[in-house]
Amino acid sequence: MNLMNEIAENVSINAWVSKYLRAPFQVNKPHESDAELISLPGDSQHYLAVTIDTVSEEITSGLYRDPFTMGWVTVMASLSDLAAVGAAPLGLVIAVSVEPSRDAEFTGRIALGIEAACRTAGVFILGGDTNQAPTISLTSCAFGLVSRKKVMTRVGCRPGDLVFVSSKVGSGNAFALARLSGLSESYLAETSYRPFANLKAGEFLSRFASCCMDTSDGLLASLDQLARINGVGFEIQTDWDEILAPEAIDISRGTGIPLWTMAAGPHGEFVLTFTVAPDRQDEFYGAAERHGLKPLRIGKVIDCPGVRLRTSGDRLIDIDMAYLRNLLAVVDGDLKRFIGEFLAYGRKAGLE
Amino acid sequence: MNLMNEIAENVSINAWVSKYLRAPFQVNKPHESDAELISLPGDSQHYLAVTIDTVSEEITSGLYRDPFTMGWVTVMASLSDLAAVGAAPLGLVIAVSVEPSRDAEFTGRIALGIEAACRTAGVFILGGDTNQAPTISLTSCAFGLVSRKKVMTRVGCRPGDLVFVSSKVGSGNAFALARLSGLSESYLAETSYRPFANLKAGEFLSRFASCCMDTSDGLLASLDQLARINGVGFEIQTDWDEILAPEAIDISRGTGIPLWTMAAGPHGEFVLTFTVAPDRQDEFYGAAERHGLKPLRIGKVIDCPGVRLRTSGDRLIDIDMAYLRNLLAVVDGDLKRFIGEFLAYGRKAGLE
Repeated sequence: MNLMNEIAENVSINAWVSKYLRAPFQVNKPHESDAELISLPGDSQHYLAVTIDTVSEEITSGLYRDPFTMGWVTVMASLSDLAAVGAAPLGLVIAVSVEPSRDAEFTGRIALGIEAACRTAGVFILGGDTNQAPTISLTSCAFGLVSRKKVMTRVGCRPGDLVFVSSKVGSGNAFALARLSGLSESYLAETSYRPFANLKAGEFLSRFASCCMDTSDGLLASLDQLARINGVGFEIQTDWDEILAPEAIDISRGTGIPLWTMAAGPHGEFVLTFTVAPDRQDEFYGAAERHGLKPLRIGKVIDCPGVRLRTSGDRLIDIDMAYLRNLLAVVDGDLKRFIGEFLAYGRKAGLE
Repeated sequence: MNLMNEIAENVSINAWVSKYLRAPFQVNKPHESDAELISLPGDSQHYLAVTIDTVSEEITSGLYRDPFTMGWVTVMASLSDLAAVGAAPLGLVIAVSVEPSRDAEFTGRIALGIEAACRTAGVFILGGDTNQAPTISLTSCAFGLVSRKKVMTRVGCRPGDLVFVSSKVGSGNAFALARLSGLSESYLAETSYRPFANLKAGEFLSRFASCCMDTSDGLLASLDQLARINGVGFEIQTDWDEILAPEAIDISRGTGIPLWTMAAGPHGEFVLTFTVAPDRQDEFYGAAERHGLKPLRIGKVIDCPGVRLRTSGDRLIDIDMAYLRNLLAVVDGDLKRFIGEFLAYGRKAGLE
């Protein structure tokens, strides 16, 4: 697992994990799954899937300004982890900390965002905790059931497997870059930023995927994490017009920020990226079509470690994902410097 | 439920709940249970119990200074909710937000506190989320299973039922008052403040209790909440020497703060307070003794609403718990003013 430790966040998680005794009935090891999977004593057919996520930096940094967005994303972030293991949701509990200065209209709009996300996904808030705190922080814990026979984790892909996304990516980075570049609200209204965790897609994919992860930290970071966990690499075709969401392409044009950053930046969305063994390809395409899913093939799993882009001109560019994923910590969270150095890396690497 | 709305926190929770659609498979209604209870599709014998709790105000106010305490209490707070419904724990997930300025020694000691609490309770951390935030905030979500046949909630006590605590109370308020009064660490060392959620007691009590709640907001606040939910009242015998933990009696002597505040203040602990029907009293005492439990009888359920103290001199004093429970919000969290007005209320009410 030395490759894992090149990523600051993995090291930080490992430092916590090293203090804890491991539960004998837990199915996944650390990093191996978007949601934790445990055996239930009274149900031999399923595992319980559980996940917890806090949304705070996106709010305190000014990325989300509409409390509706804050509530919406909090729900979707944890539902997305359930989708990535193919779980059917049982529900969520939410812990909300808001500043004493916030009024009832503000908190009411957080609640509306939470509820709208729940109704869209067909799930329910079961309970929660409310607190006053000097800075706002929203935490959701989602749990669900997954069939023991078709559990999907981050582990299992092999060289030769095909790589997919469940739908177009880049809307998360597009939103963040539009906001941080000071583009006007009319260019990318926050009210239209409603990333969606596709639980139905996750349940379907669990029949076919050899590994899966959501794109919540950006597509390339997810692929990099999968590469490190599985001891493989990913070769991704840079057909950005095919892979990227229309708003990502628009924002790229509006800001002059190149398309690759929409896949490489750290503010992802809740799309699933996954792999399918080549001998199951035909069966998978047929079943996906009957399911109304249009997965996009974006590349293949390769032997050689890391994330490599194959450009339209058939150039191969190895991306130093450890550099990009650690950059925000290296620049101490300074977003302006982060964007500057991120783009400078791209120019140096020959990315347009 | 008009009596419920006299309490600011209940009103705040109701404002959130009013925005949410209720899950048809949820067993408890809002306020009715320390943990949320839901039917599991694949297990007709059990309910899943889930609860989420954030610890932040206790840290930012300076009440907890040792990161070990922060981690410990975070775990115990949510395990205590499982205990109050009689659930057997499955595990916890934890979301940790710490300030960028904190070093690895600090976060490592939070983790040690988390793990020590888990080992003491015989449970496991299954996963979590880590974030940087301008203010520290620790959230735990615990879940467990409870037999459908002996589920215990806050609902069900009747006038004539006997009122108990699972062990002596007041250690939480004693710790807070010692800290806020500026007593020296040697008087009540933070390292000795390790409140404990008694899961085994909860599982045992679920066979006998007509209602149950933990004392996390202080004994009298819990009884007040139970009174409001059940449309009854509680008459509590003020045998403080019997009811209060030794450290609460010590701190009362050391600070001159009267004994009743150790039961009435808002910084509780994780004792269970519960009721037993009088016709099950003998059976209960026998079973408790065989179980190594020494429940303390503290009073009885009465018809008349509210919380009433019966002093050793047989005086009856009705406590305005709505005033006391709302006071911290009324004084805008000003702890000095809170303590002053809290004590002034006691003098006015004739409490020593």
